Amino acid sequence: MKILLIGAHGTIGSAIRRELSPRHEIVEIGRKSGDYQVDISDSESIRQLFAQTGRFDALICAAGNVTFAALADMSESDFALGLQDKLMGQVNLLLIGREFANDGASFTFTSGVINREPIRTGSSAALVNAALDGFVKAAAIELPRGLRVNSVSPTVLEEAMDKYAPYFRGFKPVSGADVALAYAKSVEGLQTGQTFTVG
Amino acid sequence: MKILLIGAHGTIGSAIRRELSPRHEIVEIGRKSGDYQVDISDSESIRQLFAQTGRFDALICAAGNVTFAALADMSESDFALGLQDKLMGQVNLLLIGREFANDGASFTFTSGVINREPIRTGSSAALVNAALDGFVKAAAIELPRGLRVNSVSPTVLEEAMDKYAPYFRGFKPVSGADVALAYAKSVEGLQTGQTFTVG
Ligand SMILES: NC(=O)c1ccc[n+]([C@@H]2O[C@H](COP(=O)([O-])OP(=O)(O)OC[C@H]3O[C@@H](n4cnc5c(N)ncnc54)[C@H](OP(=O)(O)O)[C@@H]3O)[C@@H](O)[C@H]2O)c1
Ligand SMILES: NC(=O)c1ccc[n+]([C@@H]2O[C@H](COP(=O)([O-])OP(=O)(O)OC[C@H]3O[C@@H](n4cnc5c(N)ncnc54)[C@H](OP(=O)(O)O)[C@@H]3O)[C@@H](O)[C@H]2O)c1
Repeated sequence: MKILLIGAHGTIGSAIRRELSPRHEIVEIGRKSGDYQVDISDSESIRQLFAQTGRFDALICAAGNVTFAALADMSESDFALGLQDKLMGQVNLLLIGREFANDGASFTFTSGVINREPIRTGSSAALVNAALDGFVKAAAIELPRGLRVNSVSPTVLEEAMDKYAPYFRGFKPVSGADVALAYAKSVEGLQTGQTFTVG
Repeated sequence: MKILLIGAHGTIGSAIRRELSPRHEIVEIGRKSGDYQVDISDSESIRQLFAQTGRFDALICAAGNVTFAALADMSESDFALGLQDKLMGQVNLLLIGREFANDGASFTFTSGVINREPIRTGSSAALVNAALDGFVKAAAIELPRGLRVNSVSPTVLEEAMDKYAPYFRGFKPVSGADVALAYAKSVEGLQTGQTFTVG
């Protein structure tokens, strides 16, 4: 399969590359790194990406930014990044990318544990992650041509604990390799409309 | 209790009034109807509302608009209404309204069944409803002064079947009176961070 991997050089993306590259052609995409660049928060940039990559069999997005801040300090504008970047960025990868998707192609998005187990400063992340899981469930049933869409919702990764441990006290981290399996299940299996939780 | 009820003259809001008005002071709010007017999609309008109503013990929002359209016909702009109106409208009622909330006051928002049981044309509604349920779960644990926040997620109402039956074939509708009980549980109970499903 020809797999577009957005966030290919990130923590999760690197683990996905290790899992899938022995069996598939991985097109590595990042904001600055990779074979191609995209800013998923900008739909024009997404259009330019697909014009460059051409058709594909699977798209994985392991990228997406949200604001982490104490709810007491948050106002409307602090929710804008999550809505425009991690949420609508991934929704737009489907809305725009579907024209370039071969029959039976899959979209796999990344949400995360925070809507299942909320943490301090996580109100925007919880909103966005839940929205993604809800979107894939509903969008899946309307997709034509055997197109599929799922999300992967990992808990914190072992590889990210140096950065995130203070936010995730008491959480048992999972290995990137285990998280990558969920993406393989989405891409190489046949399920659709699912959220694959890891941890 | 002094309860601000947004959408007081709508299908759900009318049922909530019948349930709660015998026991509480209900301030009826609508876009055009009611004692006070607000457009929840406009944070300046929300600010003006609270300047008029003053402090409160409970806020219920039974209002919120999203676009219903076939996924095939949707692009980014079709998701904007749901994000700005039903989703951020209700989030902003908490972000702005908390300053006017008495100690122990509750916020009760309305999501809906579509993220639990998706329907044709429901991808934006599913995204928004899930986002609301995720937000209340996370926001609840960061609220000070005993403030609480929950959502009510009803299936389609009997009273709305004249309009909505074609979208909800096979769904067993619930009475407005039963839906109103969930709002009473949220307002008059002590739970927080919950989504009360009805149907
Ligand atoms: N790490 C965890 O423990 C964990 C757990 C659950 C969920 N998640 C979620 O998984 C996603 C990825 O997390 P991560 O820790 O792997 O991130 P990361 O290590 O910071 O890597 C992010 C990757 O995404 C790319 N990127 C960032 N912003 C982008 C944008 N606007 N458009 C396109 N590409 C962009 C980066 O490109 P460059 O390489 O060019 O910088 C990088 O390749 C995030 O949404 C995160 O919330 C992470
Ligand atoms: N009806 C159902 O079966 C059902 C089931 C599940 C979930 N829901 C959700 O529940 C919510 C209310 O549904 P409903 O059927 O009761 O609606 P409805 O009968 O159309 O009534 C809507 C109410 O909200 C007010 N309103 C509308 N837009 C507003 C805005 N932007 N700002 C402030 N107020 C606004 C209206 O004011 P005016 O009185 O001035 O027009 C009216 O009072 C919606 O989000 C809907 O998705 C409904």
